[in-house]
Amino acid sequence: MNMGEGVEWGLHCCVTLGWLDGEGPVPIRSLAAWYDLPQEYLKKRLQALARAGILASAPGARGGFMLARPPERITLMDVVTALEGGAEAFRCDEIRQRGLGAEGGGFDRPCGIARAMRRAELAWRRELAAQTIADLMADNPANGTRTRKNYVRLRD
Amino acid sequence: MNMGEGVEWGLHCCVTLGWLDGEGPVPIRSLAAWYDLPQEYLKKRLQALARAGILASAPGARGGFMLARPPERITLMDVVTALEGGAEAFRCDEIRQRGLGAEGGGFDRPCGIARAMRRAELAWRRELAAQTIADLMADNPANGTRTRKNYVRLRD
Repeated sequence: MNMGEGVEWGLHCCVTLGWLDGEGPVPIRSLAAWYDLPQEYLKKRLQALARAGILASAPGARGGFMLARPPERITLMDVVTALEGGAEAFRCDEIRQRGLGAEGGGFDRPCGIARAMRRAELAWRRELAAQTIADLMADNPANGTRTRKNYVRLRD
Repeated sequence: MNMGEGVEWGLHCCVTLGWLDGEGPVPIRSLAAWYDLPQEYLKKRLQALARAGILASAPGARGGFMLARPPERITLMDVVTALEGGAEAFRCDEIRQRGLGAEGGGFDRPCGIARAMRRAELAWRRELAAQTIADLMADNPANGTRTRKNYVRLRD
């Protein structure tokens, strides 16, 4: 069970865009250079975040990406769902209702296995939904100082 | 983020082998027919559970699989780890330390993003570790009755 590398990219970019609030749209090439990431792949991830209403994008030569709403209102769950989809990781094909073991029926209750797996995933989602980009920013203010300093040098 | 279909197969087989405790080794062909699953694929999953010490296998014409320890001592986490590996789903490549954004350093603390993602995965793992195959069996005793009845007919 693996998430794509885009989750790390997306979360870091959201935090960086949070720090750079007030700098205007941050060009995709700057974000790619920031983390030494392949620009075209990163672009796809940021476009997915824009489609989910997490980032806003500005077109044109001076265009780029910025947060579409305050970092207090972007949870880690929002970012993960935008990049990985909202489907449950556990796949239930209702095999209990197939084959010889199913004879005699009695499947009106939801499967206990699916419920147990769902309960665990909900615990994971709850934890992700309880943490915001603002929490990540507050966790390490020195990062914000360094980010702004480096960005000014990159831009100039 | 997806688990393989083998997780549903493995969990159902463990519960079924829990119900069939006392029947001796259950042949792989019976388990495959039980859930209408492809025998060779199922075999690979059950062998992974055996390597993890969850199932025991008996060779020969009357051989098959059985639980290697009491169902109270097999957690959902054990089964998921045996089938999906124990690696974290979130992949952290420490991109924060790469590229222009990293200038100025200050990376002695673990990354807040990796810690936040880990916290969420721990909540998921805790929930899986708190539930056993015995809990799943106790959740639906009627299933046990049907399973034993169907198995006797299949065997005879």
